[in-house]
Amino acid sequence: MTDTISIPDLDALVTGIFETAGLSAHQARTVAAVIVAGERDACKSHGIYRIEGCLRTVKAGKVDGRAVPQVDAGDGPVVHVDAAGAFAPAAFDLGLPALEARTRTHGVAVMAINGCTHFSALWPEVEALADRGLAALAMCPSYATVAPTGGNRALLGTNPLAFAWPRRDEPPYVFDFATSVAARGEIELHRQAGTPLPEGWAVDAEGRPTTDPAAALDGAMLPFGGHKGSAIVTMIELLAGVMIGDLTSPEALDYLGTTALSPHHGEIVIAFDPEHFARKRGHDPLQRAEILFEAILDQGARLPSQRRFAARARSLREGVSLSAAERALLARLAAQGLDAV
Amino acid sequence: MTDTISIPDLDALVTGIFETAGLSAHQARTVAAVIVAGERDACKSHGIYRIEGCLRTVKAGKVDGRAVPQVDAGDGPVVHVDAAGAFAPAAFDLGLPALEARTRTHGVAVMAINGCTHFSALWPEVEALADRGLAALAMCPSYATVAPTGGNRALLGTNPLAFAWPRRDEPPYVFDFATSVAARGEIELHRQAGTPLPEGWAVDAEGRPTTDPAAALDGAMLPFGGHKGSAIVTMIELLAGVMIGDLTSPEALDYLGTTALSPHHGEIVIAFDPEHFARKRGHDPLQRAEILFEAILDQGARLPSQRRFAARARSLREGVSLSAAERALLARLAAQGLDAV
Repeated sequence: MTDTISIPDLDALVTGIFETAGLSAHQARTVAAVIVAGERDACKSHGIYRIEGCLRTVKAGKVDGRAVPQVDAGDGPVVHVDAAGAFAPAAFDLGLPALEARTRTHGVAVMAINGCTHFSALWPEVEALADRGLAALAMCPSYATVAPTGGNRALLGTNPLAFAWPRRDEPPYVFDFATSVAARGEIELHRQAGTPLPEGWAVDAEGRPTTDPAAALDGAMLPFGGHKGSAIVTMIELLAGVMIGDLTSPEALDYLGTTALSPHHGEIVIAFDPEHFARKRGHDPLQRAEILFEAILDQGARLPSQRRFAARARSLREGVSLSAAERALLARLAAQGLDAV
Repeated sequence: MTDTISIPDLDALVTGIFETAGLSAHQARTVAAVIVAGERDACKSHGIYRIEGCLRTVKAGKVDGRAVPQVDAGDGPVVHVDAAGAFAPAAFDLGLPALEARTRTHGVAVMAINGCTHFSALWPEVEALADRGLAALAMCPSYATVAPTGGNRALLGTNPLAFAWPRRDEPPYVFDFATSVAARGEIELHRQAGTPLPEGWAVDAEGRPTTDPAAALDGAMLPFGGHKGSAIVTMIELLAGVMIGDLTSPEALDYLGTTALSPHHGEIVIAFDPEHFARKRGHDPLQRAEILFEAILDQGARLPSQRRFAARARSLREGVSLSAAERALLARLAAQGLDAV
């Protein structure tokens, strides 16, 4: 009895789970793709662990698994996508061709997604743009689980910030992180494992520092990088919530009434065409970036996502290992659909 | 004998110093404006302390005080400004009308400034856009004084990141910070005051942690927020250096050969029109942002720049206090121009 599964087989299995749960073929495929990408890249907190939360959100009626997102793109650099209550990866997938085209035309373009349910990492999105030779910066709110620096109550989200820069002969330069000290998923994994949190990650419901994962989940997480990180978290609320007319993190929590479901809000992706900017100066931006990356690596520092890309190469070659519990869970979800959650 | 000076009088004095040093009237006025704004807002590290560095850079022939920046803006959302070796505030000032117009037309626009000498805070620039009802994100390299997380040598810059969001009845929401733990100016002030640095700000020339300001200035500063901040610092090198065909922080240091002069490189400003994005959703983004700001203030947290705006109000009313040494310096610079540095 083997405990490994190939990436295509895992993709088919997860896609099937979402189809059984009633998602449209397009939503099932795009949602499964980002979950399988997480598992493939050894990001356990964004891998198959996320399936149950997605299904609970479907069951609670807080996401429309059959909605068809609508793309509203003129000739200008702003591409609006109304997700119509669908999962975010479906909305991103449908808006991507227009975002790519407008970015090439104008040098810069923005995709504003409204009304999606978000549960995934943002790196699959910025990587999709880097695969097309574009740089991209993506961000979205979450739900109110983070206290602003100097405050003591959950108000802001863990608001992920992701960036990718294309490289010709290597996987792209990519970062994607929660703008809290830790991702909520990491605290959840500590809770499941029964291990204490590092100092400085969170405060309890009374605003006191805590290392107890359960108390942290009842209290508030803290922004990364002190007041500077807190300012960035707030900027994400403004650009990817308020500006595009979608929910901020406190509003997303009000809408759901719980953090046990995936949050409903918007998202923005800002894309840049380095070749467009380069025309004015007659240089090769991708080649010049390599000089910087080499200098970083030369002093023993890492580029972000290097471990993820190494895991990806291994997973594509050998498949991924799943524990007996994980395999049992997938089998149960495949057989019972929404009845399993 | 009074030790206070009104803001208009300080502005006339500083403008006169730069004109005596040979700057064009436009460069003298725009450079003086940001230096006086720093002093007015009690940002001593970006106030009159910066004048001598600017003059040294003029004297060294590394900035062209008489250059006239050229704006190259078509109908699209990218506005190119070739500073032609001028100080950055002159380039920003000349490109601002096109950036504002393109942002209103398209919803998003980018100003790429090339070939400027940068010495100032970025908040005067993002505030200028917020004063026009726009949100803005600005960033630029610096010179190689920061080690990437996991590395041990100066490679990246202190790369400032600034953002502003417009408010109707209050000064804008504004942050502007070095993406190093501390700004180089702060370390320099510690050196002048003979006080040790807090832990975690810097490493010495051998890559070992240090609290000695002089050793830190010989070694490398560290990014804010660990690997997350390091990733953001690198993103700024890519977008505001490599992408726009201008110098990265290590290249800027090579060009100057010293950190005692102001660095020559480029800059990008990304501007957003909240009203443009709002049209699609029929909401008032500025009103909705106030709900978020109120909630932050309600739990005792501060908005960034609150202290700066309080200082501004006081300075506009009462003038600013200058020490005897500061007054003597200004008098000497006014009398001797470049011969004083």
